[in-house]
Amino acid sequence: MAIATRLTERLGIQHPVICAPMALATGGALAAAVSHAGGLGLVAGAYCDREWTLGQVRAAGNARVGAGFITWALAKAPDLLTDVLKHQPAAVFLSFGDPQPFADEIKDAGAALICQVQSRGDAEAAIAAGADVIVAQGAEAGGHGEVRATMSFVPEVRDLIERHETGTLLCAAGGIADGRGLAAALALGADGVVMGSRFWASAESLAHDNMIAAGIAATGDDTIRSSVMDIARRLDWPGRFTARVLRNGFTDQWHGREADLIADADAQAARWRDAWAAGDTDVANTFVGEAAGLIHDKPPAGELLQRVVAEAESVIAANARLIDGGRSLN
Amino acid sequence: MAIATRLTERLGIQHPVICAPMALATGGALAAAVSHAGGLGLVAGAYCDREWTLGQVRAAGNARVGAGFITWALAKAPDLLTDVLKHQPAAVFLSFGDPQPFADEIKDAGAALICQVQSRGDAEAAIAAGADVIVAQGAEAGGHGEVRATMSFVPEVRDLIERHETGTLLCAAGGIADGRGLAAALALGADGVVMGSRFWASAESLAHDNMIAAGIAATGDDTIRSSVMDIARRLDWPGRFTARVLRNGFTDQWHGREADLIADADAQAARWRDAWAAGDTDVANTFVGEAAGLIHDKPPAGELLQRVVAEAESVIAANARLIDGGRSLN
Repeated sequence: MAIATRLTERLGIQHPVICAPMALATGGALAAAVSHAGGLGLVAGAYCDREWTLGQVRAAGNARVGAGFITWALAKAPDLLTDVLKHQPAAVFLSFGDPQPFADEIKDAGAALICQVQSRGDAEAAIAAGADVIVAQGAEAGGHGEVRATMSFVPEVRDLIERHETGTLLCAAGGIADGRGLAAALALGADGVVMGSRFWASAESLAHDNMIAAGIAATGDDTIRSSVMDIARRLDWPGRFTARVLRNGFTDQWHGREADLIADADAQAARWRDAWAAGDTDVANTFVGEAAGLIHDKPPAGELLQRVVAEAESVIAANARLIDGGRSLN
Repeated sequence: MAIATRLTERLGIQHPVICAPMALATGGALAAAVSHAGGLGLVAGAYCDREWTLGQVRAAGNARVGAGFITWALAKAPDLLTDVLKHQPAAVFLSFGDPQPFADEIKDAGAALICQVQSRGDAEAAIAAGADVIVAQGAEAGGHGEVRATMSFVPEVRDLIERHETGTLLCAAGGIADGRGLAAALALGADGVVMGSRFWASAESLAHDNMIAAGIAATGDDTIRSSVMDIARRLDWPGRFTARVLRNGFTDQWHGREADLIADADAQAARWRDAWAAGDTDVANTFVGEAAGLIHDKPPAGELLQRVVAEAESVIAANARLIDGGRSLN
């Protein structure tokens, strides 16, 4: 069983599937499990907590993993990149900010530079920065993102790359949680996929059990893009980015009333953080994408990856049989 | 050249591609061109202007076309459905409202009932109404829609249909403008696609030349979902639906200031309608989806359909070769 693409060749992996570096969810164990199963796992450096990040990179053991950062947060703590690069990550994944200031250091260290983008303008910047792989992230993704949706964004970025003739590879992210999504992404012109929510609901995920249970119970209609959880966490997100989470009592109370939330910030921040620690899903938010409607269990990540690839192969083979009754393939 | 699916079999068409019934764009000529080329064209009954709609149905001549309506508008003018059914349309397409009150009349007349849905709840209602085909429409679509994105919405609705065991067919809509999108939709579990924006920019489209030119010049980053053009047109849209259009001077001025727009309604309504008639794309809005970034020309619709199907076949065949070097297909 294998789907060989330019991504598997370039990154030296077996399957064209990357596990997203999800803040406080993708630790060393999850990243290692995905890499051991033939994909690429990325430890979540996220907001650049130094101790947590380096601890999780070490926890990945001898697995060939990478690391991911929120670019605007890394700009405030660039030494963390230097220290992570000493562990020889296979790749560094940057999202939400200008990758240019970090590109040379990453590539000089021998790591692949993976740039996640949310707009066509971002994609231009990633090409200019010399990205090895661009990840076109659709708005249906869980956690932070912007407004473009995967279905047309991926082929548009593919065409943009072709015009630049840089040989940059492309992954799709957002709304992909099974083999159908992987097969569809390849059809759209991607060389592979980045899956977040699906690996977030895996045995090795560091997400709270209550939140994973809420994600499994939810349908794709149950999510919302909002900034209220960033206000509550006092995080300095650029205004263009919101986060997709499950709607809950907190979003019902505050979404659309952001000025009131800021006015009550001290009390609400404490309330949200206490709820996060306690796994109270009606106050703290569950970070999951619209793909929640495709997620019904919490298997080991390696088993999950095998399942996704096997299903994609089956879908690709079935679609081939639709063409002139399969005759054109003989 | 052919991609045979359950949709082509059920509807008696050659290619699994339907042209969306776009208000004031899909007239009889466009619908007929798509049907003559082997897809299914749907004349836009839209807001149920009686004279326009029946005129365009007649203009389709002997082509085997269907018709589409905005469901909440049809509820105010149900006689129009009765009169359209006298022309024996191949299908009736309903979107934006409860299809149940019209289902029996449509099916008794021998037309296929196609229900476009924007949420999982809508899909449940369409199954209950006895839809022959459900169209899962993602938010990236041009014109009216809601918030779910195509990539995960389509497989989620497919799974829902399978659980109901009704044999309902499924089409994907939103963000699909070329063969990559068609191939991706089939991978996601759809039996076919509904394309709007792509056919909107065709030789037979009734859209204003200036607007088509603006759509061709735009990238996928240039659109916005808004209600300001509905306020300006004094249309009674249910609050959950917004329309995707190109951002322009009018949306820059009024989006986010809807209350102010309502207060200035008389003047702004006249201004917007005059601009629409004149093809002034900086005041009146160009209705096109994020797929604008994939649209670069205005060919005849039949040529377009052939191009999309040929590209989809090529994509499907190429993906099949990724599996174990193509060996699993031998």
